[in-house]
Amino acid sequence: MALKSDIEIAQEARPLPITAIAEACGVDEAYLEQYGRYKAKIDNRFLKETARPDGRLVLVTAITPTPAGEGKTTTTVGLADGLRKIGKNAVVALREPSLGPVFGIKGGAAGGGYAQVIPMEDINLHFTGDFHAIGAANNLLAAMLDNHIQQGNALGIDPKQITWRRCVDMNDRQLRNIVDGLGGRMQGVPREDGFDITVASEVMAVLCLASDIPDLKARLGRIIVGYTYAGAPVTAHDLKAEGAMAALLKDALKPNLVQTLEHTPALIHGGPFANIAHGCNSVTATRMALKLGDYAITEAGFGADLGAEKFLDIKCRMAGLKPDAVVLVATVRALKHHGGAAKADLGREDLAALERGLPNLLQHVDNIKNVFGLPCVVAVNAFPTDTAAELQLVEDKCRELGVRVALSEVWAKGGEGGRALAEEVVRLCGQPSDFRYSYDLDGSIEDKLEAICRRVYRADGVALTPAAKKQAQRLTELGFGGLPICMAKTQYSFSDDPALLGAPRGFTVTVRNLKVSAGAGFLVALTGDIMTMPGLPKVPAAEKIDVDEDGRISGLF
Amino acid sequence: MALKSDIEIAQEARPLPITAIAEACGVDEAYLEQYGRYKAKIDNRFLKETARPDGRLVLVTAITPTPAGEGKTTTTVGLADGLRKIGKNAVVALREPSLGPVFGIKGGAAGGGYAQVIPMEDINLHFTGDFHAIGAANNLLAAMLDNHIQQGNALGIDPKQITWRRCVDMNDRQLRNIVDGLGGRMQGVPREDGFDITVASEVMAVLCLASDIPDLKARLGRIIVGYTYAGAPVTAHDLKAEGAMAALLKDALKPNLVQTLEHTPALIHGGPFANIAHGCNSVTATRMALKLGDYAITEAGFGADLGAEKFLDIKCRMAGLKPDAVVLVATVRALKHHGGAAKADLGREDLAALERGLPNLLQHVDNIKNVFGLPCVVAVNAFPTDTAAELQLVEDKCRELGVRVALSEVWAKGGEGGRALAEEVVRLCGQPSDFRYSYDLDGSIEDKLEAICRRVYRADGVALTPAAKKQAQRLTELGFGGLPICMAKTQYSFSDDPALLGAPRGFTVTVRNLKVSAGAGFLVALTGDIMTMPGLPKVPAAEKIDVDEDGRISGLF
Repeated sequence: MALKSDIEIAQEARPLPITAIAEACGVDEAYLEQYGRYKAKIDNRFLKETARPDGRLVLVTAITPTPAGEGKTTTTVGLADGLRKIGKNAVVALREPSLGPVFGIKGGAAGGGYAQVIPMEDINLHFTGDFHAIGAANNLLAAMLDNHIQQGNALGIDPKQITWRRCVDMNDRQLRNIVDGLGGRMQGVPREDGFDITVASEVMAVLCLASDIPDLKARLGRIIVGYTYAGAPVTAHDLKAEGAMAALLKDALKPNLVQTLEHTPALIHGGPFANIAHGCNSVTATRMALKLGDYAITEAGFGADLGAEKFLDIKCRMAGLKPDAVVLVATVRALKHHGGAAKADLGREDLAALERGLPNLLQHVDNIKNVFGLPCVVAVNAFPTDTAAELQLVEDKCRELGVRVALSEVWAKGGEGGRALAEEVVRLCGQPSDFRYSYDLDGSIEDKLEAICRRVYRADGVALTPAAKKQAQRLTELGFGGLPICMAKTQYSFSDDPALLGAPRGFTVTVRNLKVSAGAGFLVALTGDIMTMPGLPKVPAAEKIDVDEDGRISGLF
Repeated sequence: MALKSDIEIAQEARPLPITAIAEACGVDEAYLEQYGRYKAKIDNRFLKETARPDGRLVLVTAITPTPAGEGKTTTTVGLADGLRKIGKNAVVALREPSLGPVFGIKGGAAGGGYAQVIPMEDINLHFTGDFHAIGAANNLLAAMLDNHIQQGNALGIDPKQITWRRCVDMNDRQLRNIVDGLGGRMQGVPREDGFDITVASEVMAVLCLASDIPDLKARLGRIIVGYTYAGAPVTAHDLKAEGAMAALLKDALKPNLVQTLEHTPALIHGGPFANIAHGCNSVTATRMALKLGDYAITEAGFGADLGAEKFLDIKCRMAGLKPDAVVLVATVRALKHHGGAAKADLGREDLAALERGLPNLLQHVDNIKNVFGLPCVVAVNAFPTDTAAELQLVEDKCRELGVRVALSEVWAKGGEGGRALAEEVVRLCGQPSDFRYSYDLDGSIEDKLEAICRRVYRADGVALTPAAKKQAQRLTELGFGGLPICMAKTQYSFSDDPALLGAPRGFTVTVRNLKVSAGAGFLVALTGDIMTMPGLPKVPAAEKIDVDEDGRISGLF
């Protein structure tokens, strides 16, 4: 029997009407705005008006990513379905996929196999229009900024110190670096400019951290778009832009309700970059999931050093959230990759490579347990090539740290394959925990960087380039020294060198650039060049995507 | 009593659930996709599966536009409400407003006073996401084009002969002329480029003329994006882009159902530019309106020389539509403007100026009746300053052409103020008509241009610049000689000189540029520079737009 593709499985599913999903999790129709038959937005008034207590918050994170793949979203979806199988009321909260990469090499991004959210075509294409709204708000601010300069520049904005870029939800390398405003004095002011992909816009991070419309407007107003000739920051509020931007975003702020293949409610909402931003779904969606489910299962981008650290140090701190348990996803294949096995050999038993790679998993586990003080389980996302001896080795090593391992077979079996993981998650949620951040906000910028690098990455320390040192001083003078730090570092290593796999030691992290996302409310520390506008590959996935006369889409995978 | 603004009137309205509107006009829930409570898309399967006969098709057009304003959309909405008042089943089909101008000087664009479509905030902002989908499809094609060149340029595309531009639904003059692909060999190919506003994209025109998904894909595939070094056209099909573009547009192809303040069903769908494109709502929406209503009331952009001519010669010809009656909207104020009255004096009785301006109206009337062979009524959109003698003069002059005048008071009174117009429209729809186009497709490009300019504009003839002559020859060689012509001419005069008001004579129209919109299926004849990317004014409307904590929007007007 040929294996079915994700889209084939998704299209064979029989989704329930979204009204039935909403009703089953107790959302009155008055709060529901349908988008077609299988998608809806839930009004954020629900959060204020419901009397329900919060459920348990479970974070799904992963080992350091490898080309072998880990299956974090798949595990998140399957865990929620598994909790339902053992009689628990679970709800998923996930990020929305970005449109651009769908046409590149990525295909779909809504779980996989029998652990998916549906309708996957819609979720991967425009969904409910949130990202388009974010793009419009971003680009309205850009148009108002350049129009201000064109119309006399009363604020004295220096065109050479503009930091706000335009955006588009498309992989379009041609727009990375441009010169615009060409063509004469009525056609704008010639200057260097560029586009980011929409998920890299600060508006995305703002939307995902905002608790309601007033908070959204306040954050939008604080966004810094550039500096005056005198060096003072210019904000969206100075341009009187935040009201119209918020008007564009009023519906995008409402979480989107869909369902898994097994009819578990899923809130899919927001999707900021996980390097220059914090990489998790919106605060409103997480809060909504806590109200709708006794267990709210959510995920964070990249490995736990980046995704979980930001989820805990930034999002949980800002939103006053406290996780009850953490699931760390690993695969035997990926651990062997961390142990130096070649890609072609990952399907063969190799206990030595596995043992060499295991410290990566163990350092993440240790961080969750001992740096952040949270109960943790390791979910091994099963592959047919995993051997009993390999699985035993993972289990033995984790037991030494007091952490159990659950085999997850949700890709092949759906919720049924997530029962063991679900049982352990329920057990952990009953355990005492001692949640703490990896750094305090009241230290200096350098102190905070040092804390993350030493405690989470296990670096010998952090070095700021002279430029970064100056930026730290300037940002402190401007009053931003008390913000949390968003590390923009390679996701492929605990260190800032993507070649250092496993659990490297004896390295120093170099911070080359520090900037403030004043609307989002964090400082971004860049350790190298971060690509904020992807390109298309030689043969884009778009060439294979099609739609038939009945509107059925093919070529997403 | 202070006059209420459009948004105040709209927000006081009590809309019916869109499911009730759909039910009342016989659309089964199976065809309906809700977008919130008051908007829905209707699946185009309805067109194939319904057994209903078509209703009557009524086109609303206008005299040559002036700064005094004519109220075409308001009249269109009020006529449909008026038809309902006299017991007829009427449905409106309108264009969707563009997002960009909402933040400039325009404010809303969904009718006015007591003749509006609602929810006006949604319709004026993202609505159901159609324009964002069009922008994404446009920009995917652009990204695939530049990626093709970057990845080796197998097709031999000449970067200096690329005609496809990117787009954004924003008034952003800074993007009119850019250089992109800067930054080194991995960052694209440096070249001159630019952005249009989304409504100016050929994808918009394609969507509005496509009858179904296969036709949409075929048209998208025919879009020409540029030329090879050898001079051969390069199409979207050559880039294998049409499938993914159509996948992005599959929902955008479905007409959107909303309602008027008086609960008349309104299909608001598509909105191509009225100069470089044909300027009317989608073919699918018009066809749907004909199935849902005994009277389908639709409008066309600008004055009748541009909007109605293109509606009749392009849209009706391509879609096989045949109008039953035409409403020509005029105001006494605008006619006095055409007669040379100063703006400050338009509110004073001035029979001499009115008489001088009337030939503008009469030429439009004559064109509808005698060039296109259609029954016609003049709707005078009433202003409080109109005098009885002025209205009498308009009536007398129209009577000489065998055309009646109906006073329309729909802005102030809603459908009640549209009864007289509605009665006359019903009478006209019972009259015999002899609909014909203003030119045949089988003449040469020059023949067709000559026919439009002489017969509709009453020019002495048409002159092609040497460049345009060459283009005409080249387009004929490429096999595009048999397409209809889309005139891109100033909307402020019958001639190509915006200063020539009234009904000028003794002029020649100069065509400076000819290009093909091969996907839309027409040739565009440009008589001057056409602005396809507006800018923001000194004080953008965006500065006043806001949203409160309950999501209520203010500052649209």
